[in-house]
Amino acid sequence: MKSSTTVYILIGIIVVLAVVIIGILLYLNSQPEQTRGIEQLVEIEPMEPDSEVWGINYPNQYSTLLKTETNDERTAYGGSEPYSKLETDPRLVTLFAGYGFSKEYNEDRGHMNSLTDVEGTARVGEKTPGTCYSCKSSDNPRLWAEMGMEEYDMTPFMELGDEIDHAIGCANCHDAETMQLIVTNPALDEALQAQGQDWRDFTRQEMRTVVCANCHVEYYFKGDGNYLTFPWEDGTKIEDIATYYAELQFKDWEHPESGAPLIKMQHPEYELFTQNSTHYNAGVACADCHMPYTRDGAAKYSTHDVKSPLLNAETACGQCHTDVTYVTNRVSTIQNQVYETMIATEDAILDAISAIEAAAAESGVDSQQLEEARWLHREAQLRWDFIAAENSMGFHNPEEALRILAAATNLARQAELKAVQAAGTPDIIQGETN
Amino acid sequence: MKSSTTVYILIGIIVVLAVVIIGILLYLNSQPEQTRGIEQLVEIEPMEPDSEVWGINYPNQYSTLLKTETNDERTAYGGSEPYSKLETDPRLVTLFAGYGFSKEYNEDRGHMNSLTDVEGTARVGEKTPGTCYSCKSSDNPRLWAEMGMEEYDMTPFMELGDEIDHAIGCANCHDAETMQLIVTNPALDEALQAQGQDWRDFTRQEMRTVVCANCHVEYYFKGDGNYLTFPWEDGTKIEDIATYYAELQFKDWEHPESGAPLIKMQHPEYELFTQNSTHYNAGVACADCHMPYTRDGAAKYSTHDVKSPLLNAETACGQCHTDVTYVTNRVSTIQNQVYETMIATEDAILDAISAIEAAAAESGVDSQQLEEARWLHREAQLRWDFIAAENSMGFHNPEEALRILAAATNLARQAELKAVQAAGTPDIIQGETN
Repeated sequence: MKSSTTVYILIGIIVVLAVVIIGILLYLNSQPEQTRGIEQLVEIEPMEPDSEVWGINYPNQYSTLLKTETNDERTAYGGSEPYSKLETDPRLVTLFAGYGFSKEYNEDRGHMNSLTDVEGTARVGEKTPGTCYSCKSSDNPRLWAEMGMEEYDMTPFMELGDEIDHAIGCANCHDAETMQLIVTNPALDEALQAQGQDWRDFTRQEMRTVVCANCHVEYYFKGDGNYLTFPWEDGTKIEDIATYYAELQFKDWEHPESGAPLIKMQHPEYELFTQNSTHYNAGVACADCHMPYTRDGAAKYSTHDVKSPLLNAETACGQCHTDVTYVTNRVSTIQNQVYETMIATEDAILDAISAIEAAAAESGVDSQQLEEARWLHREAQLRWDFIAAENSMGFHNPEEALRILAAATNLARQAELKAVQAAGTPDIIQGETN
Repeated sequence: MKSSTTVYILIGIIVVLAVVIIGILLYLNSQPEQTRGIEQLVEIEPMEPDSEVWGINYPNQYSTLLKTETNDERTAYGGSEPYSKLETDPRLVTLFAGYGFSKEYNEDRGHMNSLTDVEGTARVGEKTPGTCYSCKSSDNPRLWAEMGMEEYDMTPFMELGDEIDHAIGCANCHDAETMQLIVTNPALDEALQAQGQDWRDFTRQEMRTVVCANCHVEYYFKGDGNYLTFPWEDGTKIEDIATYYAELQFKDWEHPESGAPLIKMQHPEYELFTQNSTHYNAGVACADCHMPYTRDGAAKYSTHDVKSPLLNAETACGQCHTDVTYVTNRVSTIQNQVYETMIATEDAILDAISAIEAAAAESGVDSQQLEEARWLHREAQLRWDFIAAENSMGFHNPEEALRILAAATNLARQAELKAVQAAGTPDIIQGETN
């Protein structure tokens, strides 16, 4: 073979190889871009308040979120049915006398009812500050960004309502671009900072607990501007919170019968759960039980049908526990123990209220001792309410719940005795104590 | 070949085969009998009191039992060091005033010290009945069989001591022939029968808990014969036990300051643990944690070095739990919570004692209300002591322990208030309450 022939053959091979390479590159270029497994059908604007838009890209999460609107199942001590707590336990009418919660106090419904329920409650009126919307709407992240929390909180509830159309939704916990979990409530950001923490450094599993603290916490409205504040500066243990409020001499209202300066606890699920509870210390996050991983064919997702794990224990508890019947029986045993102890605490506080009211009516009452009795009533009631208002009947942290209730009962009985000392006579005690 | 030759050959083969078979059988017969893995070197007499004899056949079990004599390690709230509880917590001196436990109350040591310690205690004297040996010696099964429990209990302690030479040992829980776990204490047998239970029907795992109830229970000495009796007829919950004693109007002693008819709780580990504790309900037996399975080469055995699982947590807790550090931290958290609550209960009872004593000294005291105050003191103290005397600082059943302490504190404060009502004046309260 002539060398020129050999050269032509080699060039031919090179051309063929080049064409193949070009063909491969053209083919690859024509393929759709690699995604993280989720096809973005629409682009979601930052802080988009409408969960339906997010739902186009995340149909499983959205369709399960929608279920929170219609769920109305009840558990032994909670659930999503909006039954009246005042009818279930009439002691609450006296305990919250002089405050809105003695007029209406219903069991919470699911996330998608948040707006309907806050606007429908008898506790809302002309003087209600905008702050009350803080935990109720996915419009909040946008409004906080636009107005700042200070102005948001100073706007009257009725006026702010014009800006608010959506119940709790995707924007309350997710970044629209990356879908990462984020803290959106400025009050939580500030409360963490006050403790030297920054949620931006948290692990994903920590975020699966701390985003719930956007709302599921104890908070108060600070100053004339009703600035949303979490009382965490000294810590999140009930004694720390009590100290914080004591130093401020803060009160939510004065009890009309005892005259005590009282605090209403909101829903301190985060504080109770994270205070050395067995599940928290074992690395379990809120979402593990309340938003357990579920499957839709090959897709694994966290259900957004947030509710009591007792309503789907096989899935919720079954992620870690093999014997779900054992586990739910255990929950039942613990909740019954906490409930029994909590009712005894309530009876003790009712006795304290009666005694203080009667002592105050005595002509020669020792006013300093009367004030001490009122303060003991306050300290007892805020401890009791920390457990009573918390939505787990103690299960989020059984030993801590019982420890706190034991202390509350002790304080309530001391309040009663102090009232007798203030009056100078035990005749103010009517009939048998509870 | 002739047919006769064939026959001889066949017979020869048969003979050879028969000889081989006989040889094999003779060989097999010459082999030692198959045993259950344990060679019986000596025959153990029924109810043999001397554990050393059993130890010839069971060297691992015996050598670990011997360790209970010298163990003197202390845990945060217990262990095997015989420190004085009265020095650690001087409140106990007042709480047990008028009773032996205010003179001496030491932390228990291990099983092999039982005889030394009961004979050395300052609480034993001329009037002490033989019943006090019931939980202290492996001579008991033999003596109960020979004398019957009635005569045993009627024999004075000093006299019965002549018959008793051995500390707690093998015969207290095992049948000498089969090594099966058995209930040897007639009082336990009777208490189970009173509840319609028969330990002979129990599973092996149930026996690994119930044999501990031979001793680790609440009991009292019934009648003039000091007949050993467990107060379980109405159940083993503290409220059931309180009802049982109330119906009998039984008391161990009268408190010299309050005049209350009190009950000393012994060591109700069995009652607290089996009252729906999480470990008991999960099927865990006492022996699983306190006598965990251990290996000596190929031999697996249950260690008889009975002690706090905190002293060998890797082995004890590690049988079920993978993260032993997590688990021991959990124990610590719970015990601290129970301890804090228990001390608050003690302070409340001390206040009640002072108030009742002062009320009784008032000239115009209402004697009926004074009796009510004394009864409230009794009910508070027996609940508190159910947890205080129980050897786990609540860990055997954390929620139940805290539930009971909350109730005890409530009752103690009510006792104090009732004393004020009896006196007709709060001036009997000196200074601040605890």
